[in-house]
Amino acid sequence: MADFRVFSVVLTVCIVCVLVECKYMVYNTSQGIVPGKLNVHMVPHTHDDVGWLKTIDQYYVGSNNSIQAACVQNVLDSLIPALLADKNRKFIYVEQAFFQRWWRDQSEAMKKTVVTLVSSGQLEFINGGMCMHDEAATHYIDMIDQTTLGHRFIKEEFNVIPRIGWQIDPFGHSAVQAYLLGAEVGFDALYFARIDYQDRAKRRDEKKLEVVWQGSKSRGSSSQIFAGAFYEGYYEPPAGFYFEVNDDSPVVQDDINLFDYNVEERVNAFVAAAFSQANVTRSNHIMWTMGTDFKYQYAETWFRNMDKLIHYVNQDGRVNALYSTPSIYTDAKNALNESWPLKSDDYFPYADRINAYWTGYFTSRPALKGYVRTMSGYYLAARQLELFKGRNKSGPTTDTLADALAIAQHHDAVTGTEKQHVADDYAKRLSIGYQESEDVVAASLGCLTQSSLPSECKNPITKFNQANPRHLPFYLVLTLLSRNTWNSKYTNLGISCLQLSGVEKNICRENSCEHLLLSFTVIELNSFGLFYEILFIHIYSCTSGFVLVFNENVTVTDSTGKVIFSQLTPIVNASIAKRKFYATAHMGESPSASPMYWLAFTAVVPPLGFSTYVIASASASIKPMSYTFDGSQNGAIQIGPGNLKLIYSANDGKLTQYINSRSLVNVSVDQSYSYYAGDARGDDLQASGAYVFRPNGTFAIQPEGKIPLTVFRGPLFDEVHQMINSWIYQVGPIPIDDGVGKEIVTQIKSNIGNNKIFYTDSNGRDFLERIRDYRADWDLQVNQPIAGNYYPINLGIYIKDKNTELSVLVDRSVGGSSIADGEIQGKYYLRFDPLGEGSKWRRSFGQEIYSPFLLAFTEQDDKWTNFQVPTFSAMDPSYSLPDNVAIITLQELEDGTVLLRLAHLYEVGEDKDLSVMATVELKRVFPNKKINTIKETSLSANQEREEMEKKRLSWKVEGSNTKQDTDLRGGPVDPVKLVVELAPMEIRTFIINFNSNLVK
Amino acid sequence: MADFRVFSVVLTVCIVCVLVECKYMVYNTSQGIVPGKLNVHMVPHTHDDVGWLKTIDQYYVGSNNSIQAACVQNVLDSLIPALLADKNRKFIYVEQAFFQRWWRDQSEAMKKTVVTLVSSGQLEFINGGMCMHDEAATHYIDMIDQTTLGHRFIKEEFNVIPRIGWQIDPFGHSAVQAYLLGAEVGFDALYFARIDYQDRAKRRDEKKLEVVWQGSKSRGSSSQIFAGAFYEGYYEPPAGFYFEVNDDSPVVQDDINLFDYNVEERVNAFVAAAFSQANVTRSNHIMWTMGTDFKYQYAETWFRNMDKLIHYVNQDGRVNALYSTPSIYTDAKNALNESWPLKSDDYFPYADRINAYWTGYFTSRPALKGYVRTMSGYYLAARQLELFKGRNKSGPTTDTLADALAIAQHHDAVTGTEKQHVADDYAKRLSIGYQESEDVVAASLGCLTQSSLPSECKNPITKFNQANPRHLPFYLVLTLLSRNTWNSKYTNLGISCLQLSGVEKNICRENSCEHLLLSFTVIELNSFGLFYEILFIHIYSCTSGFVLVFNENVTVTDSTGKVIFSQLTPIVNASIAKRKFYATAHMGESPSASPMYWLAFTAVVPPLGFSTYVIASASASIKPMSYTFDGSQNGAIQIGPGNLKLIYSANDGKLTQYINSRSLVNVSVDQSYSYYAGDARGDDLQASGAYVFRPNGTFAIQPEGKIPLTVFRGPLFDEVHQMINSWIYQVGPIPIDDGVGKEIVTQIKSNIGNNKIFYTDSNGRDFLERIRDYRADWDLQVNQPIAGNYYPINLGIYIKDKNTELSVLVDRSVGGSSIADGEIQGKYYLRFDPLGEGSKWRRSFGQEIYSPFLLAFTEQDDKWTNFQVPTFSAMDPSYSLPDNVAIITLQELEDGTVLLRLAHLYEVGEDKDLSVMATVELKRVFPNKKINTIKETSLSANQEREEMEKKRLSWKVEGSNTKQDTDLRGGPVDPVKLVVELAPMEIRTFIINFNSNLVK
Repeated sequence: MADFRVFSVVLTVCIVCVLVECKYMVYNTSQGIVPGKLNVHMVPHTHDDVGWLKTIDQYYVGSNNSIQAACVQNVLDSLIPALLADKNRKFIYVEQAFFQRWWRDQSEAMKKTVVTLVSSGQLEFINGGMCMHDEAATHYIDMIDQTTLGHRFIKEEFNVIPRIGWQIDPFGHSAVQAYLLGAEVGFDALYFARIDYQDRAKRRDEKKLEVVWQGSKSRGSSSQIFAGAFYEGYYEPPAGFYFEVNDDSPVVQDDINLFDYNVEERVNAFVAAAFSQANVTRSNHIMWTMGTDFKYQYAETWFRNMDKLIHYVNQDGRVNALYSTPSIYTDAKNALNESWPLKSDDYFPYADRINAYWTGYFTSRPALKGYVRTMSGYYLAARQLELFKGRNKSGPTTDTLADALAIAQHHDAVTGTEKQHVADDYAKRLSIGYQESEDVVAASLGCLTQSSLPSECKNPITKFNQANPRHLPFYLVLTLLSRNTWNSKYTNLGISCLQLSGVEKNICRENSCEHLLLSFTVIELNSFGLFYEILFIHIYSCTSGFVLVFNENVTVTDSTGKVIFSQLTPIVNASIAKRKFYATAHMGESPSASPMYWLAFTAVVPPLGFSTYVIASASASIKPMSYTFDGSQNGAIQIGPGNLKLIYSANDGKLTQYINSRSLVNVSVDQSYSYYAGDARGDDLQASGAYVFRPNGTFAIQPEGKIPLTVFRGPLFDEVHQMINSWIYQVGPIPIDDGVGKEIVTQIKSNIGNNKIFYTDSNGRDFLERIRDYRADWDLQVNQPIAGNYYPINLGIYIKDKNTELSVLVDRSVGGSSIADGEIQGKYYLRFDPLGEGSKWRRSFGQEIYSPFLLAFTEQDDKWTNFQVPTFSAMDPSYSLPDNVAIITLQELEDGTVLLRLAHLYEVGEDKDLSVMATVELKRVFPNKKINTIKETSLSANQEREEMEKKRLSWKVEGSNTKQDTDLRGGPVDPVKLVVELAPMEIRTFIINFNSNLVK
Repeated sequence: MADFRVFSVVLTVCIVCVLVECKYMVYNTSQGIVPGKLNVHMVPHTHDDVGWLKTIDQYYVGSNNSIQAACVQNVLDSLIPALLADKNRKFIYVEQAFFQRWWRDQSEAMKKTVVTLVSSGQLEFINGGMCMHDEAATHYIDMIDQTTLGHRFIKEEFNVIPRIGWQIDPFGHSAVQAYLLGAEVGFDALYFARIDYQDRAKRRDEKKLEVVWQGSKSRGSSSQIFAGAFYEGYYEPPAGFYFEVNDDSPVVQDDINLFDYNVEERVNAFVAAAFSQANVTRSNHIMWTMGTDFKYQYAETWFRNMDKLIHYVNQDGRVNALYSTPSIYTDAKNALNESWPLKSDDYFPYADRINAYWTGYFTSRPALKGYVRTMSGYYLAARQLELFKGRNKSGPTTDTLADALAIAQHHDAVTGTEKQHVADDYAKRLSIGYQESEDVVAASLGCLTQSSLPSECKNPITKFNQANPRHLPFYLVLTLLSRNTWNSKYTNLGISCLQLSGVEKNICRENSCEHLLLSFTVIELNSFGLFYEILFIHIYSCTSGFVLVFNENVTVTDSTGKVIFSQLTPIVNASIAKRKFYATAHMGESPSASPMYWLAFTAVVPPLGFSTYVIASASASIKPMSYTFDGSQNGAIQIGPGNLKLIYSANDGKLTQYINSRSLVNVSVDQSYSYYAGDARGDDLQASGAYVFRPNGTFAIQPEGKIPLTVFRGPLFDEVHQMINSWIYQVGPIPIDDGVGKEIVTQIKSNIGNNKIFYTDSNGRDFLERIRDYRADWDLQVNQPIAGNYYPINLGIYIKDKNTELSVLVDRSVGGSSIADGEIQGKYYLRFDPLGEGSKWRRSFGQEIYSPFLLAFTEQDDKWTNFQVPTFSAMDPSYSLPDNVAIITLQELEDGTVLLRLAHLYEVGEDKDLSVMATVELKRVFPNKKINTIKETSLSANQEREEMEKKRLSWKVEGSNTKQDTDLRGGPVDPVKLVVELAPMEIRTFIINFNSNLVK
C-alpha cells in the first residue's frame, strides 16, 4: 500500500451538446383551419361531474381530496390567466352549476375580464345546462328546466347562446336529448362519447360516427341535429397527450439547453395519432378532446404543451393543428356541404365492451330516483303558486329547489351511480329546496285563501310560518319512500334524505308527531292544466296518539261543508315494522309513535287551482272489511269495488285474471318474483353494480309455503296484502349475506302475443319501438340476453297484440324489458286496454303521476277554520285545457315576466282523437290578466324562436333531397287572438309580459 | 294491487340554511407582527431537489412524472400571478439552478415583473446557491463555488443579497456550513430541520432549538450565526395545513352558501397547532414552513387557503397569523434582544429515530463522489488557465463545468442518495462540462507555450482542436474510477459517467485507443499556490498497441532535454480483467486493447505554472523487479525504497509494521477486511441503504487460504498486490446474491491508545473532536454502536496518543470512525507521525489531493516538439505562497475583473510553526500586472466585506457578556502595499481590477 499517489488524467467525454443563446420563446398558435390539410381541432375542455365520488361542493372547493383529487375552483381560477397569456388559446366550459359557484366568488374586475374572454370566443360555454344531465333516468321536463336555468344565466350575464350539445359522459343517449334538448334549444350539433361498442366498431368501419340524428318521428326534420360520436368512445386526448399537472404523458421538451429534447418524437406521435383518427372520420377535420374529468387543475400545464404542439406540428407541416371549439369544428363540418347518414331512435342500451351493459343504473338508488321525481312535480306546482302570489325577491323562492333539482339530473345523480354520501347530498339539497318552496307555497296559499289580498301578502311568510302549516313530521317521508320502492328492482335502498346532521336531527325530533293537534285542514292544489277528478288520495297519519284523538273515527268535509265518503284502511304490521326500522336507523332512536291507518277520500280540484277539505273527529268512520285467505280455501277471490276486478286464486294466492267490465278487457295474468344474481367475476370486466347490469342467472323466488292473502275491502278501494317471503312484502332490505348482489324483479305474464316487440318512452316523451335481441343499426351479437334488452323507462312501457295493450306506468325512472313474449318486466301502474285505447291512459295518467295534487295542511283553529276562498282556479272557470295539452312550466321570472311552456302530449298517430293539432286560448287560461306582449322562444328560453331558426345550420341527409314535413308545428301566435296551436309532440315556450299582477 | 294511487305529502325537512347575498370576498392579509401576541410566521416555500428521483431537467420541465409528480416550471409559472394577486403574499425561492432555468425562458416583461416582486420583498431569495448543497459529502471549496455562482447571479439580475441560510433538507449539519457558508457569506441566520431525534427532544424540552452556533474555534465569535432547528424535524406545515393541488388537507371552506363550512374548525386547529409549537419555542414568534418538496405546482391553492387562514385566525384573535419570510422572522427574533444558548461543533451524525442513522450516505456511490472531487480539482486549475489566456465570451468557457459541479453538490447528488439514472445525469453533466473546460485548457496552453502571444490566441480553439490534444480515450476513466474505489466502503459501484446514449457511445468508439500515435508530450499544470515537488505520477496507457510501439521501453525527458528517472510497473491481470468487465458492460462491446503498464516519473512544476515532459520510445526502460511470496516463506518482507518502510509477514502476508526512519516512527499495524451486513428487517424502520447505515452485525472477511503477496520493486516506488479473496483485490462488485447488503470496510489497527477520541474534518476544513459513544449536547442513548459513531470525512481522520498520530487522508468524501481504540476505519492515504507533526502532512498533502497536477497530452509532431515556452509560472519566479496559504479561487469574471480567494490552511494551535498569521504579497503573485483596485468581499463575492459586516445582525450569547476575540483576522489590504494577511482558518475573498491582460 503506497501512501503517495496523486494523479489526474485528461478524460475525453464524447457527448454532442448544442448550446445556443437562450431566448424567450414565442410559440405560433395563431393557426386557423387550413383547407387541404388534415385539421386537428384541439378542444381544451374539462369534464366536471356535478357530484359523483364527492359532492358538488366538495368538487368545487377541492375538499375530500383523499376520495378524489379534484377542485373545480382551481380549474377556473387557473384558466383565466392561461387564456389571457395568449389570445389564440381557447377553452370550453360546460357545467353551469360549477361555473355559477365560481362566478359568485369573483370580483367585478374579474367578471369584466371573463366577459371579454367570452365575447372574444376564447372562452365558450358549451351545452350550458347546470349539469350534463343523464339521458336515461331523467324526465324531459327536468331536462328542460335544468338546461333553461343554465342557459338563461349565460344569456343574462354574457348575452351569449350556447350552440353545441356536449353530452360526452352520459351512458347512452336518448332521442329526446337529440331533438328537444338539441334541436329545440337551437344547438347546431350534439357530441357524445358513449355508444355501444359494436355500434361504434361498425360506424368506424363505415365512417358513420357523425350523422344527422332525427329524434322524433312526430316532429319530422325539424327534430334533426348533427350528431357526432367520438372516435374512441371516450373524451380524452389520444394516449400520450394528456398534460394534467402531475400526470405522466411526455411533456414537449423543446429547450435544447436541457436534456431529453423530444420535439421530433412528440410531433411524430401527434401526426400518427391524427392520421389514425382521420382514417375513420369523414372529411379532413378531426376533433381532439384535450381534457377529461376535472382536468385543468392548473390550466397552464395543458396550454403550455398545446402551444408547443401547435407550433412544432405546424412547422412540421404534415397535419394542421389548431386551437378550436366544438362550434368551430361544427362550422367546419357544415361548410363542407356534404350529406350525412341519417340516424333515428336512440343510442340505448350502452355497452362499452362485451358483457358490460350499462343498464344497471336504470334502477340504481330507486329511493333517490323517486325523491327526485316527487320534488320535480312539487316544483312544477310551487312555481305556479309563486306566480299567483308574486315572486318575492327577498325570498323565500323556489330557486333553491330549482337548483337542487337541476343538479340532481346529473348523470351521476339521479342515475344512482354516485357514492352514498353524495346521494345524501342530493337528497339534502332537495329537502332544503323543498323546505323553502314550502314556505312559498304556504305564503301563496295564505294569500289566495283571503278574499281581498292583504298588504302583507307580498311577503306574508312570517305570519304564515307561525300559524300554519303544522307540517306532518319529516319521517313520514320514510313511509312514502319505502312504500314506493316496494316493487322496484334495486340493490341499494339508499333512503338518503334522512341522513341529516346532528343539529337537523334534533330539530326533527322536536317537531315530532306528538305536537299534532286534533283536526286539520287539507288544501289540495291541482297544478296540472287539466280539470280532472282525482280518484284516491291517501293521507297517512303518523302517531297512534293522533289516531286516538280521532278515536279511529274521522269525517272529511269538502269546502261546501258536505261530508264526503272516506275510508280508513289499517296500516299492516309489516309496514309499521319497516318504518320503525328505518326511522330508528336514521334518527338514532326509535320513533315514539306509529301510524295505524290510511285515510282515503275522493277529492275534486279545479285546474290551476285548489280545493280544501276538513278532516275532523267523528263518531264513526267507514272502515274496510278485512278478509284473510290462508290457502285452505278454493276458488277465486274477486278484488275491486268498481269496473276493474282482479281475480286471485284462493288456493295459492296468485293473481290470475284482470277484468275491466267497462272496456271489456279480460286477460289472464300471472305475477311472480325472481331475482338476477349479480355477476362479480374477477375477470377484466366490470362487475354488476350501480352502472353495469350483468346478471349471472335468474332465480325464481319461491314463496315460503302458501301465500296468505289479506284483503281490505272498502267503499272506495280494495287493498290486497301478500307476504311472499320474509323479505318480500313490500320489498325490504335485500339479503346480501350470501355475497350475491340481487336485482329483484317482479314479472307480469299475460297472454299477449307481442312478437318480441315492446315500446318504451324516451325521457317520458316519445315512445320508441324496441325489438328483443335486435338493433336497427347493426347486427347485434347477443351475449347478455337480459341486460342487453333493458331500456330506460320514465313514463312507461307497453306491449300489444292484435287485441289488447298491456301498459305499465312508473312513478320514477326504472328499467324495463320484455324478455319473453307476453311478459313485461317493469313497475307500478298496470293496466290492460283494448288495442288503440292505451295511449289515453298512458299520456293523461302518466302526466298525473308526474304532477300529482300538492297537499298542504293546517291546524283547524279559529282563524283557519273557514277560508274566505276555500276553492280557487286561476283559469276561466268555464275553460279547461284540451286533453292533449299540459302546462309544463308556468313561472314568474326574475324580471317579472312569465315563462310558459305548453306541451302536446301525443305523438302523431298515437291516438285516433288526440293526435291532432291542439289549441290553447291564453285569454281564458289567464282571464284576469292582460297579456302585453308574448314572445316565443327556444325551448330553454334564451333566444327568440324566430332568430334561432334563422341561425341554425342546416345539414343534408344522405339519400334525402327534399326537406320534408316542415309544417309539423303550430302557427305564429296572433297577439290579439292569443291562441296557441300545438302539433303532436310539440312543445312551445313563451315569455309573457303581463301588465300587472296576475291574480285579482 | 290497486292501480290508481296518486299522492303527495307536504314534507318537513329540518335543516337550518343561512342564505346571504353573495359578494366577492376580500381577505385581510395585511397583518404584520403584533407584539404581545403569539405571531405565527407563515413562510410559503417549496423545496426543489436539484435532482433526486428524477434529473434536474426532468424536475424542471415536469417529465418522467410517473416516477415523481414534480415540475418546477409549474411552481414558478404559477407563483407570479399568485403574488401579483395580493401584495401581502410572500414567497421564498431557494434553488438557483432551477430559478436560472426558468429565468432564461421568460420574456422581458415577465422579468421586469419579477424584479419588482423581488424589490418589494414579496419574492425573496433565500440561501441562494445553485442548490441546497449537502453538508457531509461536500468539500468547502465546492460549497463556496456553488454558493458564489448563485449569489452573484442574484446580485447581477436583482441587485439583492440573500440574508438567510436555509438548509432544510440535508441530513445533518456541518460546522463549515454555519460559519463559512453562513457567517462569512453575510447571513443573519441559518435554518434547518434535520438534527438527531434525541438532540431535538432535549432541545424542545429546554427551548433550545434556536441557538447561536459558533462553527470554528479558530475564527471565534466572528464565526457565530443565529441557527434554528425546526420544531418537528421536517420542513412541512403542521398536519392538516398542507394545501398542494390535489392534496387532502381540509381546505378552508368559508362560503356559507356551500355545504361543509368549516372556518371555526380550521381556526381552532390552527390555534392549537400554533400553541403546541410555541410551547417549545422561545419568544412569541414561531415559524410555519408552508410547503415541502416540489410544492406550489399551482401556487394559488396554497395562497387561497393561507389568505383565509390569516383572515379568520386574526379575526378570531387568539394568535396572530401573518405572511412572513425567514428574514422577517429573524429580524423579529433579533429585535427581542434576548440571549441565546451557544452551540459549538456540528450536528452530525443525524438519526431521525431509533436505529436510523443517516450515515450510510457518507459512502454511497463512491465512484460519483470521486468523480465530483476529481472534476472539482480540475475546475480549479482550468479557471486559472482560462484567466491566463483571457476569458472568451463566445466560448468555450469553464461555466458548464461550474454549473455541473454546482448541482453535483446537491444533497441528493454527491451524497449518492439519488436514483441511478440521476447519478448518470450528474456524471454526464460533469463530463460535458469537463469536455468544454478541456477546450479552454487546451486553448490556454496553446497560447502560453508560444513565446509571443499570437493574435488567434484570443480564440485559438479551432486550430488547437485539430492538432492537439489527442486525448486519452474516454474509457480510461473506468480505470481511474474503479481503481479509486477499491478500498472504499460502498454498496453500489455506480460508475455513472459511462452510461452514455447511443450516439455518444459511437463517438467514443471512433475515438478509441488505436488512434494514439507513437509518442507524446505531457504538460503538467500546477494549479496550487505552493511550489512543490510531486512524488509520483502514474500515466497509464490504454492499448497494448501503444505499449508495443514503445517496445516496453520508454524514456521521459524534461523540458531541458534531460532524461529523468522513470519506471514501468506492470498492470496486474486483476486490474485488466476488471477494466475489461466495466468497459464491456458500459460500451456494449469488449475493448479492443488493454493497458499493460503504469509509467511513473517524478515531475517538478512551478506554482501557477506548468512543466513539459516528453515520453518517447527508447532502447531500454527501467522496470521494477517482481517478487512473489506465496506463504511458504517465513520472516519479514520490507517494502519501500526510501525512508518509509512497510513490513509484511512473509508467512501470512499481513502488514505488521510501519517504520519511518526519518521521523523515527515505528508502529505495529494490522490491516484486515470485514463487512457490515445491512439490516433490512421489515419493521417500521428504514432499512440500511443509500441513506441510512444500519448494520446487523460485523463479519470478518477471511482470506481464501494463504494470501499471496506480489511486490514490484522499483527505483521510484514499490507496489504491493494482495488478493484477499475472489472479490477483494481491488474491491470489485460486491456479491449480493445472498440477499445481504454489505458495507465493505478495511480496518487499520495500531497500538495507539486514543482513548475513544478521534478527529474528523468539517468539509475538509476545521478538524472536530469526536468521542466514541458520546455527544456534547445530550446524554447519548447508544443503540447503534457502529452507525452512530460514523462521521463524514472529506479531508481526513486522525487519532493520537502521547507519542504518535495516525492520519488517513481521502480523495473523496467518505465516512470514518474509530470503533475501538487504536483503530481507524477509513480510507486511502495513511501516515504515522510523531505527535504534533501530523498536521503539516494532513494540510499540505490534503490540499494536493484536492488539487493535483492537471495533465495535458499532445502528439509529438513537428509543430509541438519543442514548445517555445516549455515551462511557465504566472508568479514571480523567486516567490511562492507561504506554506500555510492556498489560492482556492483564481478566476476571471464575466466583467473582466478577477476573483481571488486565499485560504489559510491551519487552525489555531494546530501546528507550532504554521498556525500563525500569514501574509501574501499580491504584487509578487501577479508580477506582470498592475492591480488597479482591490475590493474585499463576502465569501460568495456578492457584497463588499465592510458593508456586510456593518449590516449583519448581532446576537447575544447566554453567559457571555463581552464580544471576544474580534481581531482574529488579517487587517485591511493597503492598496499600495497590496499585502494580504490571513489569520488561522481565515479565507479572504477579493475582486481585483487589473488594468490590462494578466499574462505578458
